[in-house]
Amino acid sequence: MKNKLILTALLATSALSAQAQVKPEDAIKWRQSAYATMSWSMARIDANLQGKYDKEDVLKAATVLQAIANSGMGALYVPGSDKGKGWVDTRVKPALFTDGPKVGKIAGDFNKAANELAKAAAAGDAGAVKTSFEAVGGTCKSCHDDYRTK
Amino acid sequence: MKNKLILTALLATSALSAQAQVKPEDAIKWRQSAYATMSWSMARIDANLQGKYDKEDVLKAATVLQAIANSGMGALYVPGSDKGKGWVDTRVKPALFTDGPKVGKIAGDFNKAANELAKAAAAGDAGAVKTSFEAVGGTCKSCHDDYRTK
Repeated sequence: MKNKLILTALLATSALSAQAQVKPEDAIKWRQSAYATMSWSMARIDANLQGKYDKEDVLKAATVLQAIANSGMGALYVPGSDKGKGWVDTRVKPALFTDGPKVGKIAGDFNKAANELAKAAAAGDAGAVKTSFEAVGGTCKSCHDDYRTK
Repeated sequence: MKNKLILTALLATSALSAQAQVKPEDAIKWRQSAYATMSWSMARIDANLQGKYDKEDVLKAATVLQAIANSGMGALYVPGSDKGKGWVDTRVKPALFTDGPKVGKIAGDFNKAANELAKAAAAGDAGAVKTSFEAVGGTCKSCHDDYRTK
């Protein structure tokens, strides 16, 4: 009971009943957060590639990136979340909600690159990390170019 | 070269040179983002526990939580990030920066619970997921109570 109260309090701002749809404002905030968390990972890996390479640091960052890439973020593009505010106003373009196959292709390329990056990070192969890091960055840019306002 | 330009553009708002310290405003934004992303995971798992249990959905959410829990977020509590704004003003209390052992204990309990949650999720054991989910929630609350302003 105590735990239930704790959890109710914790989730108060984002309460989901079992059948409840994710609210657009939560969906926008969570996706902005997930992208920013991945941006932290990218910045960490970049710093390692440019400076002293720390295998464990890169692996931690790549693991976060991979987990989020494979988390099913598509579920956060709920109806009504094409406009609105999470932390800030969403910058998503309407086309993201209608360009199914094209969006799916970018998402697939991104997942593949993120998985390869994590594999290279686990192996401690800085050269392969650099290649995969650039591949991930390319897929980020591809989506931003087409589906995010400037 | 093209990839380098792409990455430079991508990381423009959070550029890190190899030796550069993480900027307080980036650190605050990234930690707010990482916590919100974990809150998404907690909400997903909660929805599964309350409704129809989908092993894959729970596993994706638990994997994200675990990856972030083990990512070394302590590195985001850089000097100067006790005050300031990421997405919003930080709510961290000054004591978090000085209560080393106590903060370390909470962080350790949190990591342990997040790892157990991921293990239970991989096994598809809803009962164990519920137990670990509540343990994770307890460690979140413990830290919020002591180190986050209301």
